[in-house]
Amino acid sequence: MPPCMPKTSPPDVLNSAHTAALQAMVGPAGLVLDPAGRAAYEIPARYAPGMAAAVVRPASTAEVSAVVGYCVREGLRFVPQGANTGLAEGSTPDASGHHIVLSLDRLVAPLEVDAADRTATCGAGVRLSALNAALEPHGLFLPIDLGADPTLGGMAATNTGGARFLRYGDMRRHVLGLEVVLPDAAGTVLRLSHGLRKDNAAIALRQLFVGGCGAFGIVTEVTVEVHHRPRQTAAAILVPRDADAVLPLLQAFEAEAGTTLTAFEGMSKAAMERAIAHVPSLANPFAEGIPDYAVLVELTRAWSPRQGEASLDEVLQQIAGDLLEREDGPLVDALFGPVEKMWTLRHSLSEGLRASGPVVGFDLSFRRRDLAAFRRQAIAMLERDFPDFALCDFGHVADGGVHFNLVGSTDPARRETLRHAVLDLAVEGFGASFSGEHGLGRAVQAAYDRYVPRAVQDYSAAVAAVFGQGSASVRLGPA
Amino acid sequence: MPPCMPKTSPPDVLNSAHTAALQAMVGPAGLVLDPAGRAAYEIPARYAPGMAAAVVRPASTAEVSAVVGYCVREGLRFVPQGANTGLAEGSTPDASGHHIVLSLDRLVAPLEVDAADRTATCGAGVRLSALNAALEPHGLFLPIDLGADPTLGGMAATNTGGARFLRYGDMRRHVLGLEVVLPDAAGTVLRLSHGLRKDNAAIALRQLFVGGCGAFGIVTEVTVEVHHRPRQTAAAILVPRDADAVLPLLQAFEAEAGTTLTAFEGMSKAAMERAIAHVPSLANPFAEGIPDYAVLVELTRAWSPRQGEASLDEVLQQIAGDLLEREDGPLVDALFGPVEKMWTLRHSLSEGLRASGPVVGFDLSFRRRDLAAFRRQAIAMLERDFPDFALCDFGHVADGGVHFNLVGSTDPARRETLRHAVLDLAVEGFGASFSGEHGLGRAVQAAYDRYVPRAVQDYSAAVAAVFGQGSASVRLGPA
Repeated sequence: MPPCMPKTSPPDVLNSAHTAALQAMVGPAGLVLDPAGRAAYEIPARYAPGMAAAVVRPASTAEVSAVVGYCVREGLRFVPQGANTGLAEGSTPDASGHHIVLSLDRLVAPLEVDAADRTATCGAGVRLSALNAALEPHGLFLPIDLGADPTLGGMAATNTGGARFLRYGDMRRHVLGLEVVLPDAAGTVLRLSHGLRKDNAAIALRQLFVGGCGAFGIVTEVTVEVHHRPRQTAAAILVPRDADAVLPLLQAFEAEAGTTLTAFEGMSKAAMERAIAHVPSLANPFAEGIPDYAVLVELTRAWSPRQGEASLDEVLQQIAGDLLEREDGPLVDALFGPVEKMWTLRHSLSEGLRASGPVVGFDLSFRRRDLAAFRRQAIAMLERDFPDFALCDFGHVADGGVHFNLVGSTDPARRETLRHAVLDLAVEGFGASFSGEHGLGRAVQAAYDRYVPRAVQDYSAAVAAVFGQGSASVRLGPA
Repeated sequence: MPPCMPKTSPPDVLNSAHTAALQAMVGPAGLVLDPAGRAAYEIPARYAPGMAAAVVRPASTAEVSAVVGYCVREGLRFVPQGANTGLAEGSTPDASGHHIVLSLDRLVAPLEVDAADRTATCGAGVRLSALNAALEPHGLFLPIDLGADPTLGGMAATNTGGARFLRYGDMRRHVLGLEVVLPDAAGTVLRLSHGLRKDNAAIALRQLFVGGCGAFGIVTEVTVEVHHRPRQTAAAILVPRDADAVLPLLQAFEAEAGTTLTAFEGMSKAAMERAIAHVPSLANPFAEGIPDYAVLVELTRAWSPRQGEASLDEVLQQIAGDLLEREDGPLVDALFGPVEKMWTLRHSLSEGLRASGPVVGFDLSFRRRDLAAFRRQAIAMLERDFPDFALCDFGHVADGGVHFNLVGSTDPARRETLRHAVLDLAVEGFGASFSGEHGLGRAVQAAYDRYVPRAVQDYSAAVAAVFGQGSASVRLGPA
């Protein structure tokens, strides 16, 4: 084959004995070898497609165990995959064709809701939307708010966060039990707790598998705590005085709204401009021009409006009104309106960005006290060294998360230089995380190798080795 | 020495070279050898005193590292200790005199509050009360509510829960960063994150040390997320229709009070009777006799009362009133009053119990859906097989935690038989935890050996071995 012709067939990783053995374990529907069938499992949500030696789709924990044990014994390496919505290239194979995709998408049972317990138990392949549909009649939901529809197994494996982290936290906070298959020659099945909210009768092994991104084993079943759906919601778009006023504004809302505060999402002018320019359905909510920075704030209450109680809209207007009246206060303007309308701008940011040019994206996370200083220093550096890129950042201010996106040059070397410069400033200058909520995968392997302290890499790899030989999706120890 | 005479001196575990070396590391105030000085470090909060070969009190992380490395190299085993308020015998030495107490009580620096970040960073020896005193001027607190004043290091190492778990969760949820010293020959110091709320850039090694009870290393510094202190509180004592009505009552309050619900504490008639009989300062709040079961419910709000807003007392009365009006509803009576007065009964239960006789205590935790069935079966078993014990249980219903206390016989064999019977029913019959919030230690080592699956024991011990040789306070692997 000429070297420049794209490969459509993987190299001979699987021999006929392998395919026969895997076929016997998972049945005809469980083994996908043809390029067309493989494609959906090979293309990550971002980044270039990889190539799988095969896609294996076990339909039960026993089948996962059989497949994993066989692969380990035969030296076949695999990448676990849920809904393939991850953003760190952790759920797809690389281009080598040497790796099998181990898809959990057929593990859609059980899907059991216990309303009194406020828990649900799901097969790893159950989608977030399916779980929430099952919870809805009970007035419950899993409050991890994302721009995708991942599987519960994938959410646990990557410790998903989202836009309402501020109020509800990440998946780690919700996972009350896990069933995992270890990447060893036996395909050992371990059940790590099973729905207890409090349990200190053994060390918390399951915490390794939450956010472990497949390095410790494959999640096959998840028990999660769920919450009552809010019955009242109010939202507004706030305009802070300047960048330094964002944190005081957040503090004021935390003090005055308490746990009714469920979102506090920062949006830069450039990000808003691109959304308004490129998303046809989005109206510009700002009558007097797009401000330098804005915040989408949301309050919710679990209960229905009570007699004599101010509505949540009124509460929000009262809090904002008091802040607007403060001389030199952190707030200079506020837009109120229906909740969905308020969120539309925030939800359009990613689409607007993608439509406006090639993006260099970062999933950074800071101590929130460092957010303003980092942004200031980063803008100075960008103006000086990278005038060919426009900063279109937005993020989850309350938990320190920043989607620090830059639109500009398509030159790979230039983009790589920019990537290094931003990460050096964030991680080395401010102790930020280079993967706040997207987890580990090939897209951040270079950053992992560069920034995670060598001792942490060594201990992580040694702990993972206790459980088996890991998956091909992430490398914890030094290369 | 005659065998029945209590030993006051440990065997010759430490030679003069050992004491000289340790003295040089921690200074004169840091090494306690005399029995009187050792006593406070040898007596657990419950259970019989142990005996320490010595108490070593390093005053900095560097000193902890030096002491731990030296002990490991010399084969001296040690038990880490914070405020020695633990209830699982995990922080004191056994009676052999072979173990050193490694006290962290001099690690009282730093104590840094960052109000905008809503975090605090504390030396492991900082007491909860000292942290809360430092947070108070900022309107903040660490909302782990306990009947003791532990150190932050001890709280992290045992993953402390408490009476407001329902709203705020356990220490795991609050720990944003740890510094630990590993039990290896170098006394390796590891910093595991440092205050980020979201960080998936590496696997969560620090989660092993939270609730690790010293098996993985010694916590020397903790960064925690803290919260705004509530500015409104209301409480009531509720009388459910019967035992089966407790969970529906909780569900109703979760739905109607949302995140303002901060405590939902169940109290049995026998526990309340003993408190009222034995705690002189406590008045009987029940005009018409003590009910079979009662619930202390608390609501809080972060904000000050707003104009036109119903007071929190009114909200609580409205929710309870609506439930009282329901025919065959879960609630049959409700007592309202000042918050402190409402809590007095709940806070007197332990004292009343201790004053009424020798207690066999359990720190159980259930899926909350199993609470009523377990209690019913346990009562039947106790009436049949253990009529010489009275059940005086109380607990944190919303998170499934039950302090299942029995008062009766002092005969050790009889108490041991009872202990086995209750644990068999709870753990084997209902999948409960035998240590919901007190962690691991000698008091639960037998239960650990009996009930924790062998595979989990093996993996736990293998993971701990990655970090060093562990402490003498807990054994994770099979004996």
